[in-house]
Amino acid sequence: MAQIKDLLGNDTVLRGDGRAVDQLRPVRITRHFTDVPEGSVLIECGNTRVMCTATFTPGVPRWRKDSGLGWVTAEYSMLPRATAERTDRESVKGKIGGRTHEISRLIGRCLRGVVDMKALGENMVQIDCDVLQADGGTRTASITGAYVALVDAMRWAEKNKHIRSADRVLKDVVSAVSVGIIDGTPMLDLPYPEDSRAMTDMNVAMTGSGTFIEIQGTAEHRPFNRAELNTLLDLAEKGNRELQAAQQAALAQD
Amino acid sequence: MAQIKDLLGNDTVLRGDGRAVDQLRPVRITRHFTDVPEGSVLIECGNTRVMCTATFTPGVPRWRKDSGLGWVTAEYSMLPRATAERTDRESVKGKIGGRTHEISRLIGRCLRGVVDMKALGENMVQIDCDVLQADGGTRTASITGAYVALVDAMRWAEKNKHIRSADRVLKDVVSAVSVGIIDGTPMLDLPYPEDSRAMTDMNVAMTGSGTFIEIQGTAEHRPFNRAELNTLLDLAEKGNRELQAAQQAALAQD
Amino acid sequence: MAQIKDLLGNDTVLRGDGRAVDQLRPVRITRHFTDVPEGSVLIECGNTRVMCTATFTPGVPRWRKDSGLGWVTAEYSMLPRATAERTDRESVKGKIGGRTHEISRLIGRCLRGVVDMKALGENMVQIDCDVLQADGGTRTASITGAYVALVDAMRWAEKNKHIRSADRVLKDVVSAVSVGIIDGTPMLDLPYPEDSRAMTDMNVAMTGSGTFIEIQGTAEHRPFNRAELNTLLDLAEKGNRELQAAQQAALAQD
Amino acid sequence: MAQIKDLLGNDTVLRGDGRAVDQLRPVRITRHFTDVPEGSVLIECGNTRVMCTATFTPGVPRWRKDSGLGWVTAEYSMLPRATAERTDRESVKGKIGGRTHEISRLIGRCLRGVVDMKALGENMVQIDCDVLQADGGTRTASITGAYVALVDAMRWAEKNKHIRSADRVLKDVVSAVSVGIIDGTPMLDLPYPEDSRAMTDMNVAMTGSGTFIEIQGTAEHRPFNRAELNTLLDLAEKGNRELQAAQQAALAQD
Amino acid sequence: MAQIKDLLGNDTVLRGDGRAVDQLRPVRITRHFTDVPEGSVLIECGNTRVMCTATFTPGVPRWRKDSGLGWVTAEYSMLPRATAERTDRESVKGKIGGRTHEISRLIGRCLRGVVDMKALGENMVQIDCDVLQADGGTRTASITGAYVALVDAMRWAEKNKHIRSADRVLKDVVSAVSVGIIDGTPMLDLPYPEDSRAMTDMNVAMTGSGTFIEIQGTAEHRPFNRAELNTLLDLAEKGNRELQAAQQAALAQD
Amino acid sequence: MAQIKDLLGNDTVLRGDGRAVDQLRPVRITRHFTDVPEGSVLIECGNTRVMCTATFTPGVPRWRKDSGLGWVTAEYSMLPRATAERTDRESVKGKIGGRTHEISRLIGRCLRGVVDMKALGENMVQIDCDVLQADGGTRTASITGAYVALVDAMRWAEKNKHIRSADRVLKDVVSAVSVGIIDGTPMLDLPYPEDSRAMTDMNVAMTGSGTFIEIQGTAEHRPFNRAELNTLLDLAEKGNRELQAAQQAALAQD
Repeated sequence: MAQIKDLLGNDTVLRGDGRAVDQLRPVRITRHFTDVPEGSVLIECGNTRVMCTATFTPGVPRWRKDSGLGWVTAEYSMLPRATAERTDRESVKGKIGGRTHEISRLIGRCLRGVVDMKALGENMVQIDCDVLQADGGTRTASITGAYVALVDAMRWAEKNKHIRSADRVLKDVVSAVSVGIIDGTPMLDLPYPEDSRAMTDMNVAMTGSGTFIEIQGTAEHRPFNRAELNTLLDLAEKGNRELQAAQQAALAQD
Repeated sequence: MAQIKDLLGNDTVLRGDGRAVDQLRPVRITRHFTDVPEGSVLIECGNTRVMCTATFTPGVPRWRKDSGLGWVTAEYSMLPRATAERTDRESVKGKIGGRTHEISRLIGRCLRGVVDMKALGENMVQIDCDVLQADGGTRTASITGAYVALVDAMRWAEKNKHIRSADRVLKDVVSAVSVGIIDGTPMLDLPYPEDSRAMTDMNVAMTGSGTFIEIQGTAEHRPFNRAELNTLLDLAEKGNRELQAAQQAALAQD
Repeated sequence: MAQIKDLLGNDTVLRGDGRAVDQLRPVRITRHFTDVPEGSVLIECGNTRVMCTATFTPGVPRWRKDSGLGWVTAEYSMLPRATAERTDRESVKGKIGGRTHEISRLIGRCLRGVVDMKALGENMVQIDCDVLQADGGTRTASITGAYVALVDAMRWAEKNKHIRSADRVLKDVVSAVSVGIIDGTPMLDLPYPEDSRAMTDMNVAMTGSGTFIEIQGTAEHRPFNRAELNTLLDLAEKGNRELQAAQQAALAQD
Repeated sequence: MAQIKDLLGNDTVLRGDGRAVDQLRPVRITRHFTDVPEGSVLIECGNTRVMCTATFTPGVPRWRKDSGLGWVTAEYSMLPRATAERTDRESVKGKIGGRTHEISRLIGRCLRGVVDMKALGENMVQIDCDVLQADGGTRTASITGAYVALVDAMRWAEKNKHIRSADRVLKDVVSAVSVGIIDGTPMLDLPYPEDSRAMTDMNVAMTGSGTFIEIQGTAEHRPFNRAELNTLLDLAEKGNRELQAAQQAALAQD
Repeated sequence: MAQIKDLLGNDTVLRGDGRAVDQLRPVRITRHFTDVPEGSVLIECGNTRVMCTATFTPGVPRWRKDSGLGWVTAEYSMLPRATAERTDRESVKGKIGGRTHEISRLIGRCLRGVVDMKALGENMVQIDCDVLQADGGTRTASITGAYVALVDAMRWAEKNKHIRSADRVLKDVVSAVSVGIIDGTPMLDLPYPEDSRAMTDMNVAMTGSGTFIEIQGTAEHRPFNRAELNTLLDLAEKGNRELQAAQQAALAQD
Repeated sequence: MAQIKDLLGNDTVLRGDGRAVDQLRPVRITRHFTDVPEGSVLIECGNTRVMCTATFTPGVPRWRKDSGLGWVTAEYSMLPRATAERTDRESVKGKIGGRTHEISRLIGRCLRGVVDMKALGENMVQIDCDVLQADGGTRTASITGAYVALVDAMRWAEKNKHIRSADRVLKDVVSAVSVGIIDGTPMLDLPYPEDSRAMTDMNVAMTGSGTFIEIQGTAEHRPFNRAELNTLLDLAEKGNRELQAAQQAALAQD
């Protein structure tokens, strides 16, 4: 693979898909992908495609009643044939797997991290992220797409007088991206073939103000040191800035 | 509503969406909707949108081993926000509902009805129909779309030498459409607002040769007589002929 | 097999059990089979034996409250050794299979089809059909037997002042029978050995007025044409008339 | 209630149903209740009616393979409307309750207690006890009836050369009966109204030789002392002797 | 094995662990084993170790509301590696096994047998018995330990004014012990190696007044006669008296 | 709260329990806590107590067969009364919650991160972490304790000739600790009262060489910046060094 210098001062290894190490896959965000939900977004990050819907419901679960606060929750799922080999449906197996649980909880936390629950009032937003096609980074694409669906749902709720102001509910922007170390080289936005070879894998959710909501770094195959961590966070910061630009561009159209 | 005479000799009640009683909603069949499955189709019947994939796997379930025969099976599911009110995921509830079971079995039977299991050999095709948006007729749209995905999977299997000939596996074409009686008038292809008002509701799966694979007529709200049945079957025949034309048109493109 | 002309003008193939093609198996309906339920019926169609109970409960499920309307629901199940090979209990497997779901829903729809929900008022009837011995036609025997149990439950409810009039709740009679095509010959009321050889199989539920509540024709193995459909419906009509006579005879005794 | 002296020297309180304290309810054992199972028995103890089938299968579960030993197992279940109030199906609830588990295990142990596993060879017998009507003592009636079904299955297996000798498999007879203390008086064979008032309740399974296979005494509501225990065991012994006479009488007919 | 005369007049077979046939294993009862529960006890009977907690909650389940009565319930579970071979978690399997159900119910009945539900008032006590290490007799150790936890919970409830008097709630003491017949010799308190060889196995729960709350004798492998039963009950009585002394000693410390 | 300078140059806020911000709770590691498992450890971090066992089994799951590689997996669970309010058992609910899944997977990854699967050979280690008492940091205590149990299991396997060398299987040490930001102050090792007030919460698993295996930072309540992240990682590094000293001290005793 030919190499050039990238912005971080490293040699840039051109990757399988020709990208520089610090380059995102093409992102496409389609709002109003389906008609019925309050927010409905199709996000495509390279070949990864996730349908994200946001359902607004007045009222909150029982444990949250009379708190004056809202609630945001999320569920993630893969269609059986999102992957190269068909995956059995969790509904057929009769239970939800650990990975699904883990990702659903991650998405929920990231979105709650930018929502002012008081401004939302006693209303609930349910996020559904269904992966139509999986090519790595489905959980981070879900977060990035779900944020846009959430904004649409808040605009709908404002228009329909369920909340006073969408802007006050949304304290900040949130997006997420994966980074990893492959054969010793830190890289941004890993597609499946890279992801499965990565020794270290990190998902980073950031706000528009450049702070972190979630850092999940896992290095089952080769622990990483502080210097590597810093490079990975630099890459993630660059990636998230660009994803947030794509979110804003999509949200500007109407 | 204004009325005109239709081909069956009745006054044609113009419907909520302006269609004649014997008119299908616009059908759009997109092949290769996702990249990975052997067959992947998005079918749109009006606002109903179903993603149908066909997964080809060499080998058959244990009970079918050493029979020389293949197997075709199907699973149907709705995304939570396919409907106006969000539906809880069956994976989260931990069990599959009766309606889902009933429809999955129906789709499987219809496709098996046009497959020569001997020509398929000891191979399995798993059909997945996931409803992205539901506006009536999701089970019939699933059958119609799944057939196209099945053809693509058979072509793939032929090209990859898993089967000798796709044409020999596919004994016939199959499509399905709903018909029903609304306020006394038999109508073709009911969208949700009509479906929920229908006193009699029938799903009819037909082959290209004009024979029936499935007739499921249910009249919980007002039983129907033989004459009404005949009119419904005439409507279904017309609808299925047109759906089969759409299937063939889609399959002709490559 | 010897052949004679039957009423439909075909040669009558004498079947394995010596019946004419348009002849029902012997039907026996025993009311008050057990003492406790509001309605309790044992129906025997040949070797098929189903215990049908009807449970009357004041009040309706939550989603039906304050509608002024009643509700009728049904559950079907097979005892493990109703069949030649023992079937594992669904309670032990921890989930209900698709076939069970499909049949339970069918029975429920058929009975609701003859009940005036307003006359029933906010009361619920739960039908339980437990197959003690299975020899084909268990779902249609269930419908036929359950109707009788339902009548007994309504008479009980009238006597106990839960409803004003059993007759007003029951808008019509309902019975059901299976028909099918075996080796090209349409036949009435298939026992298991025939059922498993049938290329086309149809279950037909009819009212006393001769209208249809359910038609479920399935021809996974050989599609059928309009003419065959008509013959099958003629056979079903004959069978249902006779079953309804048996129902009335049983209900006349007290 | 009038009182007379019974054989144990106590005053005999005539019970709700007119029986003496040491008197069984009428027992009726119908063999070949259904046609298909290797053993099929309907046992009626008063109003309690249980259908007991014995399924013979060559081969044993994996953990028992190559031991040269057979296996006997049992499952107990109540039909939903065996009871005055309808009980939800465990298949619908998706799990088996503690009571069902407890009774299934009890029945299995009692039958294994009289089976010579070596003489049975590597074959399995599955007992199914389905309660059609419950009026107290369903678990003891199940044991008593299941034994008869087991004998029939062994005779079938001998005739079909699966085992050498039914007599050698069956080391002894087993029957079971309930006893309890009601208002201070020990009584035999409690129907539901007595059972629910009993302070002490005991189920006793005995062999033909008069030894115990199971004693399950439970006195949640009033502990019992040694003298009471002895009286209860005397009653149980008398009851079991009579039940075994009924078993033998039934088995003598063919 | 050397033999001496024991108190019951038999020769005492010294056992694998050197005990006399009528000798308990060393018992150790540690109260306040964990800090948070209202009652928390570690009971050790030889190598068997069970953690028993009692949770006091104001209020009762719905079916008990407005009865003025309290409720006591129990759940038993084994940690996966309490046994020589690791046992799969029931939470992972998604269902509770029959043995667990049976034991949980037994513990609940035994404790309810000494509780005055009226004095408890509309409050609930939930007993949890988690086996840290299993060496036979886990169910009887659970009952013995749970009683101590229950007393502590009642003292806590009295101190916190939830009940008027702990002493009035506790009508009596309860403990339990296993006895069995090994190679023809009745023995007290069987550890696992003996338990698995026992032909007859009996668990006996007794009150401080020497009456029985539960007798569960099971003799799947060799039925027992009246004389053997009496010896077993004598052994159980001796064992329970000693266990109750250990309970009282532990409860005396504070 | 009084303040002093700590090693990181900040004012040290004395905490509820009197610790400095960079001070661990007292750690106690008890090996051979139970007798049967190959590794059995009780770890106490302040009031948090977790029982960690390691089960060694020759052979690997099917998907890993003939790879020459071993496998390590983990399951985490809380006893019902580990918490102030009793938590319902997941076995009773019939499904495992998202939090349990998430933590089980985390523990598994951390331990696999220090295991040389080739040196382990085709053997499996199952880690069970059961929380007896929960006061914050149960997942990190589980990792730290499980490592010690794993070492003991490897020593056992070496001694029993299942593996060649425990030292070669264990590539490195692993421990984990929680850190968080409370009222703007980064702190080490949060007990429950702090944990529930923390705006940012991070779990950090490190090797003996000072590299990271897992970083899971979550800031649902207030995002954190790069500087805060660095301070948290410094604290985690200090904590993990001390925990590893405790692990080595425990492992040195025999």
